[in-house]
Amino acid sequence: MSKKIILMGTDTVSGVAAEILDSIIEASKIKTLPYGNDIFTKECREKICKIFEKDDIEILPMMSGSASNSLAISSFLRSYGSVLCHSESHINKDEGGAPEFFSSGGKLISIFNESGKLIAEDLNNKINSLILKGPYNSRPSGVSITQLLENGTIYSIKEIKAISDVCKKHKLFLHMDGARFSNAMAFQESLSPADATWKIGIDCLSLGATKNGAMAAEVIIFFNSELAKEARNQLKQTGHLISKTRFISAQLNAWLNNGLWLTLAKSANEKAIYLSKKLSTLDEFQLLYPTEGNEIFFKIKNTTYKSILELNIIPNLWNKLDDEMLVIRFVTSFETEQSELDELISRIYNKFN
Amino acid sequence: MSKKIILMGTDTVSGVAAEILDSIIEASKIKTLPYGNDIFTKECREKICKIFEKDDIEILPMMSGSASNSLAISSFLRSYGSVLCHSESHINKDEGGAPEFFSSGGKLISIFNESGKLIAEDLNNKINSLILKGPYNSRPSGVSITQLLENGTIYSIKEIKAISDVCKKHKLFLHMDGARFSNAMAFQESLSPADATWKIGIDCLSLGATKNGAMAAEVIIFFNSELAKEARNQLKQTGHLISKTRFISAQLNAWLNNGLWLTLAKSANEKAIYLSKKLSTLDEFQLLYPTEGNEIFFKIKNTTYKSILELNIIPNLWNKLDDEMLVIRFVTSFETEQSELDELISRIYNKFN
Amino acid sequence: MSKKIILMGTDTVSGVAAEILDSIIEASKIKTLPYGNDIFTKECREKICKIFEKDDIEILPMMSGSASNSLAISSFLRSYGSVLCHSESHINKDEGGAPEFFSSGGKLISIFNESGKLIAEDLNNKINSLILKGPYNSRPSGVSITQLLENGTIYSIKEIKAISDVCKKHKLFLHMDGARFSNAMAFQESLSPADATWKIGIDCLSLGATKNGAMAAEVIIFFNSELAKEARNQLKQTGHLISKTRFISAQLNAWLNNGLWLTLAKSANEKAIYLSKKLSTLDEFQLLYPTEGNEIFFKIKNTTYKSILELNIIPNLWNKLDDEMLVIRFVTSFETEQSELDELISRIYNKFN
Amino acid sequence: MSKKIILMGTDTVSGVAAEILDSIIEASKIKTLPYGNDIFTKECREKICKIFEKDDIEILPMMSGSASNSLAISSFLRSYGSVLCHSESHINKDEGGAPEFFSSGGKLISIFNESGKLIAEDLNNKINSLILKGPYNSRPSGVSITQLLENGTIYSIKEIKAISDVCKKHKLFLHMDGARFSNAMAFQESLSPADATWKIGIDCLSLGATKNGAMAAEVIIFFNSELAKEARNQLKQTGHLISKTRFISAQLNAWLNNGLWLTLAKSANEKAIYLSKKLSTLDEFQLLYPTEGNEIFFKIKNTTYKSILELNIIPNLWNKLDDEMLVIRFVTSFETEQSELDELISRIYNKFN
Repeated sequence: MSKKIILMGTDTVSGVAAEILDSIIEASKIKTLPYGNDIFTKECREKICKIFEKDDIEILPMMSGSASNSLAISSFLRSYGSVLCHSESHINKDEGGAPEFFSSGGKLISIFNESGKLIAEDLNNKINSLILKGPYNSRPSGVSITQLLENGTIYSIKEIKAISDVCKKHKLFLHMDGARFSNAMAFQESLSPADATWKIGIDCLSLGATKNGAMAAEVIIFFNSELAKEARNQLKQTGHLISKTRFISAQLNAWLNNGLWLTLAKSANEKAIYLSKKLSTLDEFQLLYPTEGNEIFFKIKNTTYKSILELNIIPNLWNKLDDEMLVIRFVTSFETEQSELDELISRIYNKFN
Repeated sequence: MSKKIILMGTDTVSGVAAEILDSIIEASKIKTLPYGNDIFTKECREKICKIFEKDDIEILPMMSGSASNSLAISSFLRSYGSVLCHSESHINKDEGGAPEFFSSGGKLISIFNESGKLIAEDLNNKINSLILKGPYNSRPSGVSITQLLENGTIYSIKEIKAISDVCKKHKLFLHMDGARFSNAMAFQESLSPADATWKIGIDCLSLGATKNGAMAAEVIIFFNSELAKEARNQLKQTGHLISKTRFISAQLNAWLNNGLWLTLAKSANEKAIYLSKKLSTLDEFQLLYPTEGNEIFFKIKNTTYKSILELNIIPNLWNKLDDEMLVIRFVTSFETEQSELDELISRIYNKFN
Repeated sequence: MSKKIILMGTDTVSGVAAEILDSIIEASKIKTLPYGNDIFTKECREKICKIFEKDDIEILPMMSGSASNSLAISSFLRSYGSVLCHSESHINKDEGGAPEFFSSGGKLISIFNESGKLIAEDLNNKINSLILKGPYNSRPSGVSITQLLENGTIYSIKEIKAISDVCKKHKLFLHMDGARFSNAMAFQESLSPADATWKIGIDCLSLGATKNGAMAAEVIIFFNSELAKEARNQLKQTGHLISKTRFISAQLNAWLNNGLWLTLAKSANEKAIYLSKKLSTLDEFQLLYPTEGNEIFFKIKNTTYKSILELNIIPNLWNKLDDEMLVIRFVTSFETEQSELDELISRIYNKFN
Repeated sequence: MSKKIILMGTDTVSGVAAEILDSIIEASKIKTLPYGNDIFTKECREKICKIFEKDDIEILPMMSGSASNSLAISSFLRSYGSVLCHSESHINKDEGGAPEFFSSGGKLISIFNESGKLIAEDLNNKINSLILKGPYNSRPSGVSITQLLENGTIYSIKEIKAISDVCKKHKLFLHMDGARFSNAMAFQESLSPADATWKIGIDCLSLGATKNGAMAAEVIIFFNSELAKEARNQLKQTGHLISKTRFISAQLNAWLNNGLWLTLAKSANEKAIYLSKKLSTLDEFQLLYPTEGNEIFFKIKNTTYKSILELNIIPNLWNKLDDEMLVIRFVTSFETEQSELDELISRIYNKFN
């Protein structure tokens, strides 16, 4: 008996939220100037200024998350510079070398910590040892952190503030990879976007909507307008100046309207927490990190993994620890339905309980 | 009395064709694998194989025309190589240096000819003089031509064949920038896509749908699969691997379905030819090239240009020849309406006739 | 009867001047800090400041002419910028794409003129047409000219001043490729180095000694110290920070001492002018440009070229104009002897006179 | 009373061996073709083929160690690839990002081990985890190891063989940074160059002479000629095609003649071992690694370091471990004299014993 395949390894298997589709259709009805000189992009900037409580924000609507991160980073990273990040960060492990390419050879210098987080003190030590090597070696230019973290947890405001203090001390820019920033914000309901970013020293934020309801919409938010100028210089040359930019902005506008971005993220988070709790009760599933967004990581045996696949459930195979043990990831999305979750849990319970 | 603004300087002011919007909505209804491993992209490849009458075509759906050209070119251009093209080609003048960046310093070597076309004999002479400079100088790796040409005319099959023969002789790859390839095909109704491309030696075609009905959809068509492999290697690193690639493919599928791409292009072309004929009758408008697609170029006086702007008509200011004379461009699109054209013509006739 | 081969196609076939060899030997006698933090490099900077009558000059001793040009240019050229130069300039035709690589995709935009010179008015027109294309296309960042010119002639001070005025108007940097600057200075005996460079607007000069007596010694002279900072940033990463830099500086110090650089160049020039006059009297040798340095260009028939080779004389085959006509180049050097010249002339006279 | 400064932090403070100076002078006496097409370079290749017992070796004489490593690596590293190396390797820490720049964004993926060595098993695990990430992430292209190691110890043949087996299994190229290869060979007297390199799987060796007697002479030795072809393609564009290449080859020829390279290295090694033994007897100097070449590393207190400087002895400040402890490096060279050593030891003994 063949069961319906359940794709639960990434939120990019999802479709597009209805409000966003409507907004695309609406934007198609008029003629307007290309390359971002349109009313939708203007509106998008205004919405973001309002949400982030800052008047002089500059934005670049993008269609790709890799490009959003890489262009943000190369706005302050020259070929002879370096950016410090966690070893397990997306930019270091999963962008195919895009930040290095955008900066024509800039270096990512990675620091490991079990928590998945960059720790301010480690950062400071690393910078000091790099500076010692003198002016001819890769000069630290900036730092990049991810919120929601790659392991599904959240940096506290205090942790980010400590990192940002190190950056200020060494005159480094601070970038935030916010591919799942909406999930992090939805989890910390009482926190304002301003308090979560520029008020604690973030210079630019790569804010992603694609994983959370959009078709292909990301936006680089520059709290530092000097960086925006440099990124804009590189936009066309990297092939990321989209002629009908209005359709990215139209997606973002719907997504940011009436808190839809948070509503969608909250729904995904709730599903993840539910799934996390249910599977954690099983001996075979060792939860690796607290579930603070829409990502859940389990350490399981190779044989368990095979059984899951046989149930037509497809998680993401995150890492092979050794011949026996693996790490898998489940990711829920804005459109994950309770029934789908229940079916997944039921199949696994039947097998392992 | 203020008149409604008529934007007629580029086809990128247009919206999205209804069939393409419908296809996007349809593609949103299911969950599917990201990064091009989806059924829509599979279908897109099959459609293209059929239309181009070749089984082993490989494709890369893209969201940006600059990236489509640049990735196609960098599939055969290394940093120490060069690509020959016309001085006025889009890749040389209007991509912000993207081909040079994608290839990390590859060189575009341009050849001028009044016709706007690359001439086979000039090409051969140039290559011979480059080869003479020895192994340490920019080695010619390929040639790039544009169809529909930047000046709105069309390369004949014979002209392309002559260029392709030079390429073969010197073992160079031949790329076609087909941002308006659909307009060129619609103008040459009896010509098959196969006869217009790989059968006369084209190795890869950057086929554009964005200017002709899509939202953001381009596709690199590799008739040579070795090039596809290399381009795929660079796709993620350049930030052009789109997670929800299915939505590009869904646009392309609707566009290619039942000849919609040609229907839309034909409509744009007819509007352009109508406008070209009407304005050519005026002394103030000197038509520079025959109108063989959807672009029309007029040599006009600076004062005429100002008058046109005062009529709230916005053409593209293409070039300043000297203090007195300019070149302007009008471009029609799939959604240009006869009434809009008539209004434009009426305003100009009232002023200049 | 086989004759001794006479290599007269380039000045890089020459050895090293005795004074320079002595200086190398002397520099080897002490231990000193590497990477340019040595007394020889300090002395070199002082000498150059004195010769160029400017206190705040910064220098970078280099071992390669291509690197000297490319690093000077990339000090002001970003990947998204462009540098304007003559089509026949060395940086455009004979550096293997090095300026493009050093700037990670910066563009050389070339302008042709029969004289081999960049003409101020053409330059101004080109810049205006580039600016028209808007902010997303290759922004002109600088201009590069060569002195002694590639065709062996000299830019007048007035001509350079006119170019430099255009640069100032458009806020562009002005670089001088001075691979044979010493030959140009030796030809214009009454002109001071200051008057020939920064006083007429040159921002940086790639001054070459290798072709005129040194082993491997070039020096980038920055009249604008901001550019020096950026070049220094790139020095190690491009592999051009030489550990024992003192040996480059030691070469330069001997070369600049007591006007040796001019004495050597003057000797080469005199030999070239002699050779030019002698061969110009023959119908088979059509002198293309006045001989104002140490390079001589003749338009000759293919059959004449073959005859020359049969005489065991090796000029440089500069260009193939068509199936029948060629351009060849003779270059004399500081160590060209009168007897060698007379032997060359005698062989040719015997054949063609 | 001010004492004479003793520079003992690096071997690059040394001068040039007499035999090498003589060879330069000799090479200056004739005219010969530039760019490596000369008899000295031909002779150099033949010498190397003989010493390494292999007929089809290809070589590139270079003037810079950074360039020698980076060009060797970029012969197999594309922008989207990666090279695995030890965290503390020179290419990762001390080349200013040159390998990344030469490859236009290629990634160095570093692995740490206390020994300073890359361990075959760790390497294999890392490669497996990278492969898991799929085709769009940095694909491992090669591995680079250093011999003599950065910490002054030596890889055993068995250790290299194990690494090379991992490379073969994953089809990766294996590069050896041999900036101090001669010191390693001098330490292992019975080992042949062939057995130390290509016979255990080295594909290319960056062999350095500059630190051991030459002025500026390095040579990339390609045991795999396919790599040589690619490196040659990049040589001019990176500014490393030296016109008078013969003078690099002339240095190398003298260096390789009659085992001079080993004689010089042996002398340096003996001095280092002597110094290492003497200082190790002091409590203040904790020797970190066995001295197997010409480099000695001590862990010392900050206060000890200051005292050493006050004695006018200049070691290299290698690392700051924390607020109290440092690592310093002493390096001897071919021209370090016993009297200089004794003076250094005497000053330190007087202070600390």
